[in-house]
Amino acid sequence: MEFTHFDEQGNAVMVDVGEKPETRRMAKAVGRIKVSEEVFQKIQNKSMEKGDVLNVARVAGIMAAKQTFQLIPMCHLLMLTKCSVDFTLHEEEGRYAVEAVCTVKTNGKTGVEMEALMGVSTALLTIYDMCKAVDKSMEMTGIHLLEKTGGKSGDFQWKES
Amino acid sequence: MEFTHFDEQGNAVMVDVGEKPETRRMAKAVGRIKVSEEVFQKIQNKSMEKGDVLNVARVAGIMAAKQTFQLIPMCHLLMLTKCSVDFTLHEEEGRYAVEAVCTVKTNGKTGVEMEALMGVSTALLTIYDMCKAVDKSMEMTGIHLLEKTGGKSGDFQWKES
Amino acid sequence: MEFTHFDEQGNAVMVDVGEKPETRRMAKAVGRIKVSEEVFQKIQNKSMEKGDVLNVARVAGIMAAKQTFQLIPMCHLLMLTKCSVDFTLHEEEGRYAVEAVCTVKTNGKTGVEMEALMGVSTALLTIYDMCKAVDKSMEMTGIHLLEKTGGKSGDFQWKES
Amino acid sequence: MEFTHFDEQGNAVMVDVGEKPETRRMAKAVGRIKVSEEVFQKIQNKSMEKGDVLNVARVAGIMAAKQTFQLIPMCHLLMLTKCSVDFTLHEEEGRYAVEAVCTVKTNGKTGVEMEALMGVSTALLTIYDMCKAVDKSMEMTGIHLLEKTGGKSGDFQWKES
Amino acid sequence: MEFTHFDEQGNAVMVDVGEKPETRRMAKAVGRIKVSEEVFQKIQNKSMEKGDVLNVARVAGIMAAKQTFQLIPMCHLLMLTKCSVDFTLHEEEGRYAVEAVCTVKTNGKTGVEMEALMGVSTALLTIYDMCKAVDKSMEMTGIHLLEKTGGKSGDFQWKES
Amino acid sequence: MEFTHFDEQGNAVMVDVGEKPETRRMAKAVGRIKVSEEVFQKIQNKSMEKGDVLNVARVAGIMAAKQTFQLIPMCHLLMLTKCSVDFTLHEEEGRYAVEAVCTVKTNGKTGVEMEALMGVSTALLTIYDMCKAVDKSMEMTGIHLLEKTGGKSGDFQWKES
Repeated sequence: MEFTHFDEQGNAVMVDVGEKPETRRMAKAVGRIKVSEEVFQKIQNKSMEKGDVLNVARVAGIMAAKQTFQLIPMCHLLMLTKCSVDFTLHEEEGRYAVEAVCTVKTNGKTGVEMEALMGVSTALLTIYDMCKAVDKSMEMTGIHLLEKTGGKSGDFQWKES
Repeated sequence: MEFTHFDEQGNAVMVDVGEKPETRRMAKAVGRIKVSEEVFQKIQNKSMEKGDVLNVARVAGIMAAKQTFQLIPMCHLLMLTKCSVDFTLHEEEGRYAVEAVCTVKTNGKTGVEMEALMGVSTALLTIYDMCKAVDKSMEMTGIHLLEKTGGKSGDFQWKES
Repeated sequence: MEFTHFDEQGNAVMVDVGEKPETRRMAKAVGRIKVSEEVFQKIQNKSMEKGDVLNVARVAGIMAAKQTFQLIPMCHLLMLTKCSVDFTLHEEEGRYAVEAVCTVKTNGKTGVEMEALMGVSTALLTIYDMCKAVDKSMEMTGIHLLEKTGGKSGDFQWKES
Repeated sequence: MEFTHFDEQGNAVMVDVGEKPETRRMAKAVGRIKVSEEVFQKIQNKSMEKGDVLNVARVAGIMAAKQTFQLIPMCHLLMLTKCSVDFTLHEEEGRYAVEAVCTVKTNGKTGVEMEALMGVSTALLTIYDMCKAVDKSMEMTGIHLLEKTGGKSGDFQWKES
Repeated sequence: MEFTHFDEQGNAVMVDVGEKPETRRMAKAVGRIKVSEEVFQKIQNKSMEKGDVLNVARVAGIMAAKQTFQLIPMCHLLMLTKCSVDFTLHEEEGRYAVEAVCTVKTNGKTGVEMEALMGVSTALLTIYDMCKAVDKSMEMTGIHLLEKTGGKSGDFQWKES
Repeated sequence: MEFTHFDEQGNAVMVDVGEKPETRRMAKAVGRIKVSEEVFQKIQNKSMEKGDVLNVARVAGIMAAKQTFQLIPMCHLLMLTKCSVDFTLHEEEGRYAVEAVCTVKTNGKTGVEMEALMGVSTALLTIYDMCKAVDKSMEMTGIHLLEKTGGKSGDFQWKES
C-alpha cells in the first residue's frame, strides 16, 4: 500500500477526496501524561474548585481539534459535528498519570483521526503548561488512535501489542 | 510550591511576568512515534526523494511552535529567535521509531518549553497523518522536555527514571 | 431546559449536531457604541473620504464573523454563505451613537447567532480602536440578537423589554 | 485632536510607534451580560461543578485578548505580560447580570486597551453561546474601558456619566 | 456587469451564495519568481537533498491556500477537496525563474480561484524568504488564473495577450 | 554566500537571530495588478464612495502583513511598529494597472522584507477577488522589494534591470 500524501514524483499533496462520499465518521484518540504525586494531588484538589487544570485543558483540546487543518499541512478542513475531551486520573503503585480521551465526529469525506489526536495532544500539553512550575519532568506517552468508524478504509480498533 | 497559572481564587490566569528580566533562554524537547517496519522503510526511502515525510513534518513542527501562544491558553506570546526540528530513525530488534527533537530559543521573560514541546508533538502528528493510510496503529510516546537553560527557575536536564 | 454545552458530568463539550438536518439559517445581531460629539462628527466627515472608520470596521466585523469558531470554544465551524455589516449614525438630544447590524446566513446544522454577534462586537471594537486617540470613554451597549430564522429551535424576534 | 489611524489622505494606516519608548502599561475593561433568572441560577449552580460556564468564558477571553492584533485591523501586536478575566454575579430587584472584568499588562510602545476590551467582549459572547439554548434574549451592555495606566496619553479612569 | 462584493450602497459585503448549488469546481493558478543564476543553481542543487527550498515552499503554499478565507476579506470558507503545488525551473538565455502552479478543487457554492492564487503567491514568497540572504532582487511576476472549471460563471482558460 | 534557512545537513531551520542587536528597520515593497479598462473605471468610480475596492484591499494587506510569521514557514515573529499600504492607478496607452506599495517598520533582530511583500501580495489578491466577477484575466506582476534600511546586511535599493 502507498502513502496517499504524495504524488507520483514524491511531492507532498493534499489528496483529492472530491469523489469520496460524505459519510458519518467518528474517531477517538487517547494519551497520558505521567506526573509527580505532588502534581497529581494538586490536580485532584483543584478539581473541587473553579478554573482547575483539567477544565482549561479540555477547552484547549477542543479548540485545537477545530484548528487541525491549519496545523497539519496535508489535513483537510472538516466541519466537526461533535468534539469532547474527557480525563481520568490514574494512580498505580505510586505512579501517577492523567489520561485524556478526545472523541470527534463529522459527516465528511475524510476521517477525523487527526482532529482527535490533536485534541488529546493539546489537552496534555496544556496540563504540562499549567503544572510545569511544580514539575518539569512530566512525560506525555501512549498517544494513539483508540477507535475509528466510517469511511472507505473501514473501522479501526486499537489492539494493545 | 504552587501552580502559577491560578490566582488566589483558583481561577486560571495568564501570570504576570512584567517584572521578570529578559534573559536568553533555550529549551529542547523530544518525542517518538513508533511505526511499523513498512512505514519505517517508506519513510527511509522517501528521504532520498523530494517532499519526504520528515521534511513536511519539520515545517509543520516549526510553524506550530510559533503558534503555541494561540493553542495553549495561559501561554505567553514570545518572539522566538530560533526554532529547529531534527529527526533520527531508530531500529531496535524489530521495533521501529522516528524520534523528533525540537530546539527553541528566545530572549524573553518566560521560557520556551511549551514551544519546544508543541514543535515535537506537531511534527510527530504530521508523521502520523502522512503515514496513516499505511498504518493507523502508530503511537506517539516519550514526549518530554530534554533540556532548558536560562530564566529564574534555572537550568533543567531530563533524567531517565 | 438544559444547557447543551455540557455533558452529564457537567463538562464542557462541543455538542453533537451530526443528526441535525442542514437547513437554511439566518441571524441578525445589533449593537451600539456611544461616542462623543467630536468623534461622531469626525466619523461622519471621514465617511466622505477614502479609508473612513466605518469601512475598516465593516471589514473587521466580516472577517471576525468567519473566525467565530476559533474564538468561541464550543462553537461549530460553519460555512457562511453570506455576511454583511451595516452602520447607522444616531444623534438624539445631544447623545451620539453608531449602530452596527451584522447579518449572517448559512446552510448548516447549527445557527449563526454567534457569528452575527461576533461581527457586531468586532465592528464596534474596531470603531473604538480607531477613535480612541480622541476619546477613550466610548461605551459599547445593547449588543443582542435581533432576529433568527431556520433550525429546530425555530425563529426568534427580539422584543424590547 | 486628530484620529491617529489615518494618514494625510485619510487612508487607514497602522500608525508608527517606533519612536515611542517601551513603558509598563495596564488596561482594565468591564462589561455585562443581562440574563434571565433561569440562566443566572444555572450559571450559579454550575459554578459548584467542573466545566462551568464562567471557566470556559474565562479561557476564551484570555485567548481572544492574545489574538487582538489579528482581529482589530490597525492594532499593533504586543507581548502581553499578564491577562486575567474575572466575573461577578449581579442580582438587583429581579434583574440578573454577569459582569466580566479583563485586566491586561504589557511593557510596550502602545497600550492594551483593545486587548482588555476584546477579552471582555469574547468572555461575554462565550457566556451567550453556552446559555443560548435556554435564552436567546441575553444582552451585552456597558462594555467600556475602566482604567488605563502608562504611556504618553497618560492615565485614564472611567467616570460614570 | 457589476462587482458582486458590494451592496446597493457600495458597501463591501460577503455575497450571498446560499441559493447557489454545490458543484464540483477546480481552479489552477500560476506565477513565477525571477532569480539570479546563483540562487537558481542553489535551488537546483538543494533539490537533491532533504529540506530543499521547493519542498518548504510547497508546504507553505498548500497551508496558505487553506487559510484564504481568513486573509481575503470577502472570501467564503470552502472545504478544499484537493490542493497541490508544483514547480518547474526555467532557464532561458541567462534568465532564471522558478514557476509555481497551484491546483485546488472543491465541491462548493463558490469557486477556488482565490485559493489557487493564494497558494501560488505564498509559495513564491516562501522561495523569496529562503533565498533572500543570497539575493534580494528576486521579482514575482505573471501571477494569474490559468484555468477554472465548474460554477455558474462557467469555465475559464487564460489567453496570453 | 549560503542560504541561511538551512543547517549543515540541508534541513530547513528558523535561523538563530538571538545574537543580533535590535535595530530600527524599514522595508518597502511594490507590486501591480493589470486590469481591464472596465475594472479600472469601476475601481476609480468606487473610490468616490464608501467601501471601495482599494480600502478593503488596504485593510487586507495590513492584516496579512501582521500574520506573515504564520504563513512563511521560516519567518520570525516581529512586532511591527508601523504598516501602511498605498495605491496608485496607472493608465498608459490603453493599459491599466493598480500599483500597491506596502511600507513596514520594526525595531527588531530581523528585517521586515517579508511583511512588506506579504502586504503587497495580499492587497493585490484582494483587488483580484473583489473584481473577478467582472474580469478573471487580471495579472499580478512586478512584486519585489523596493527599499530596505537597517540591519547587518545593510540598506537595499531596487534597481530596474
